[in-house]
Amino acid sequence: MVRKGLVAAAMLAGAGVAQGQMTVKHLQPNEKSPIANGVWAGDTLYLSGQLASPVTAADAAKGTAAVYGDTKTQSLSALNKIQALLKEQGLDMKDVVKMTVFLAGDPANGGKLDFPGLQGAYTQFFGTAAQPNKPARSAFQVAALAAPWALVEIEVIAVRSK
Amino acid sequence: MVRKGLVAAAMLAGAGVAQGQMTVKHLQPNEKSPIANGVWAGDTLYLSGQLASPVTAADAAKGTAAVYGDTKTQSLSALNKIQALLKEQGLDMKDVVKMTVFLAGDPANGGKLDFPGLQGAYTQFFGTAAQPNKPARSAFQVAALAAPWALVEIEVIAVRSK
Amino acid sequence: MVRKGLVAAAMLAGAGVAQGQMTVKHLQPNEKSPIANGVWAGDTLYLSGQLASPVTAADAAKGTAAVYGDTKTQSLSALNKIQALLKEQGLDMKDVVKMTVFLAGDPANGGKLDFPGLQGAYTQFFGTAAQPNKPARSAFQVAALAAPWALVEIEVIAVRSK
Repeated sequence: MVRKGLVAAAMLAGAGVAQGQMTVKHLQPNEKSPIANGVWAGDTLYLSGQLASPVTAADAAKGTAAVYGDTKTQSLSALNKIQALLKEQGLDMKDVVKMTVFLAGDPANGGKLDFPGLQGAYTQFFGTAAQPNKPARSAFQVAALAAPWALVEIEVIAVRSK
Repeated sequence: MVRKGLVAAAMLAGAGVAQGQMTVKHLQPNEKSPIANGVWAGDTLYLSGQLASPVTAADAAKGTAAVYGDTKTQSLSALNKIQALLKEQGLDMKDVVKMTVFLAGDPANGGKLDFPGLQGAYTQFFGTAAQPNKPARSAFQVAALAAPWALVEIEVIAVRSK
Repeated sequence: MVRKGLVAAAMLAGAGVAQGQMTVKHLQPNEKSPIANGVWAGDTLYLSGQLASPVTAADAAKGTAAVYGDTKTQSLSALNKIQALLKEQGLDMKDVVKMTVFLAGDPANGGKLDFPGLQGAYTQFFGTAAQPNKPARSAFQVAALAAPWALVEIEVIAVRSK
């Protein structure tokens, strides 16, 4: 019986190479959001593309619009949001394996992407003495992002490693 | 002998954490297509970006071009094609973990992306009472899609879970 | 004792379906590069988007700029770079499961993407008699790539399979 149990345990363990063994978990705390913050697929975490949060919120009483800042400011904000989402899941920037950066043309830069702006924020998180890991990355200018004020959207894939 | 067998079974089972254990399967039923419909990598299914099918086919006799409809119509078509591809593989929309949406500027919307059009189609498949799962998603406007009539292309990653 | 050892081995083996068992390896040989060439996450290899290498290098003495060629030439160069990166990791084009192609408008094509140019290079590597595998793929025109001369950037996900 014990031996049979061991065989069963070993076979069950072997399921690691079988099909349909991945646990999927949708992170969708906001019922009103049409998309998930992220989705775990086994040890891989896919995060939704992140836009910046406003530097200064809109003020209806004063009739002022929200202020989001330039590409560097928005990149910092989006990266900080990503870091917060990762930390909620027990991960951090070191665990980012792939990043895709969607830049909108910056009116302050003649309608062109502000690559140095992106890099000025990005290099605070990746390839530093404290956090030397760098992700695989693609970055390019899109025609427009979903929000008219947005100058950058950043999406990452992160991995829970041993 | 039995014990040795058990040790071997356990070691084999341990292969789940070893290298090179993923089964890859290319779904390329159409020999003339330069790309696969999708590719399985272990329990992860990568689908190619999907464009809409025409609402009304071209008619050479009448000299009329194919009609593809607006962003919402095209999004519905692309999502239905994705669902059909997933079902062929034993999956469904609930198994989509990541989606990327490439929108082209809509001439009927001043050349801007029609985000409400996308959402009107998307929300019929994700985050409903019947199918509450939502994917991680990024969506943005590209300069152009491969087909001049195309207003939207949708790509997904889906997972076979336990 | 032996039996306990077997149980332990089976439990360890079972870790294949447990959390945090993926080995991550960052390929970042160039200290000055802000991004990795690629990152291994278990058996999945994410490569950074690849631009073409110049056909003719810039010549400061002659005051001539680097020449990168048209979309087909640049696509061939980027795909050859991808193949070289894959081979360094013991993989090859057959192992590419997902590709995303970012095309810039080609001034020689009225500012539109040169899709035939891409395909003329791509079909030399995928879906041939010698290498019949085709990846899942999305391809579209972006507003601009990071380098002003770039007409195409190609990113891939490849998998080490059994």
